[in-house]
Amino acid sequence: MTNSIFTHRSIRKYKSDIIPENILNRVLEAASRASTTGNMQVYSIIVTTNQDIKNQLLSCHFNQKMVVEAPVILTFCADFNRFSMWCRQRNAEPGYNNFLSFVTAAIDALLAAQNACIEAENQGLGICYLGTTTYLANKIIEVLALPELVVPITTVVIGYPDENPELTDRLPMRAIVHQQTYQNYNQQEIDSIYSMKENMETSKKFIEENKLETLAQVFTEKRYTKKDNEFFSNEFLKAIKNQGFNF
Amino acid sequence: MTNSIFTHRSIRKYKSDIIPENILNRVLEAASRASTTGNMQVYSIIVTTNQDIKNQLLSCHFNQKMVVEAPVILTFCADFNRFSMWCRQRNAEPGYNNFLSFVTAAIDALLAAQNACIEAENQGLGICYLGTTTYLANKIIEVLALPELVVPITTVVIGYPDENPELTDRLPMRAIVHQQTYQNYNQQEIDSIYSMKENMETSKKFIEENKLETLAQVFTEKRYTKKDNEFFSNEFLKAIKNQGFNF
Repeated sequence: MTNSIFTHRSIRKYKSDIIPENILNRVLEAASRASTTGNMQVYSIIVTTNQDIKNQLLSCHFNQKMVVEAPVILTFCADFNRFSMWCRQRNAEPGYNNFLSFVTAAIDALLAAQNACIEAENQGLGICYLGTTTYLANKIIEVLALPELVVPITTVVIGYPDENPELTDRLPMRAIVHQQTYQNYNQQEIDSIYSMKENMETSKKFIEENKLETLAQVFTEKRYTKKDNEFFSNEFLKAIKNQGFNF
Repeated sequence: MTNSIFTHRSIRKYKSDIIPENILNRVLEAASRASTTGNMQVYSIIVTTNQDIKNQLLSCHFNQKMVVEAPVILTFCADFNRFSMWCRQRNAEPGYNNFLSFVTAAIDALLAAQNACIEAENQGLGICYLGTTTYLANKIIEVLALPELVVPITTVVIGYPDENPELTDRLPMRAIVHQQTYQNYNQQEIDSIYSMKENMETSKKFIEENKLETLAQVFTEKRYTKKDNEFFSNEFLKAIKNQGFNF
């Protein structure tokens, strides 16, 4: 077995080969072994392979082709529905329609998702997370028929890789690790931390293509703008509240 | 190398042995290889080994002894501070003080945390997640001196195990996996899904010790009560907003 943690790359091109049932089951079982708050397992995994439903999910993810090309789409949801139904059937009054419970369930779902991804890669599969899940959650809720107290938090596309991209750059470890307490950065440190990324040829190409001055501007003016973030913040808050989490 | 995903147990008793620097660095590097939104790495990891600071963290985690007994405490934080500082130094106006950006950063932090945990277990270490992080985030923010746009989302204690607990039970896979779209449960299915858990000797002991009628009541009346959930929801919301995420 390889240790896929250190060789992870996001895969965006997939072969049409289906994933054998025993392999997919192992990936899902890996998800179920993740740590979970109070062993409540307050998450659900929706496995979508049906082409019609994938077509509907496509627009929920800004038409990223992977959604219809990869054989399997896993939508990881924060889920207090199942647990609350159980409580009600057992003469226990559930109190999980609040913000903390949403966060607890989202944490459960994300730890399960990462276990699934690592095991998928251990099995020779490729994966890609779709951050778009929190952008158009309302549409995903509709397509996947998610009931009250169920909110999609992330989506993973899985399949056999049809590309072999290089390992992605990361900030130096000292950028993300703090000793004992948080040591805030000064101007020099920020310059030093980001210099490798800024000097990459791909970064320079990004800046040029977008006719901007700095790599940071590619993020703030193109990829993750204030306007979009604020719009989709409100949309996601509405989705969470519509699903019955009150705050 | 073993595949620790399928043998994970939470460890609550630790030997006092320190973790060699090269092993701890490998665990942190594993964290850094996790998928991250737009490769922004909007998280930070605070490594606490100092006994005084661990003593201060102890009360932030409801006095769970592991916090002072395990050699290393990792606090994983959603962090848009570093990225926003970089933007400002590069003539780019960051727009990340919103709910969506908080969620994005929390997702980044959680995927990194799970990578760290799996690699720690691959290296023979034991881990335990502390769900209390979202309960007393305000106190943790103070102890770890977290600046604006940095919020603790989970904590992991790590060290060499001084116990060897059995694998924890999980719901049957059909409970957490849905095919194509969400298939809501009926009464019989809920009964069936939870029957194994309810019939465990440890569950019966829990009910008896707490002088309750059902296992579900142990959760709703003792472990995760509506009153506590609502109180800590407000506390966590305050913490997030105090750190500058506006919604």
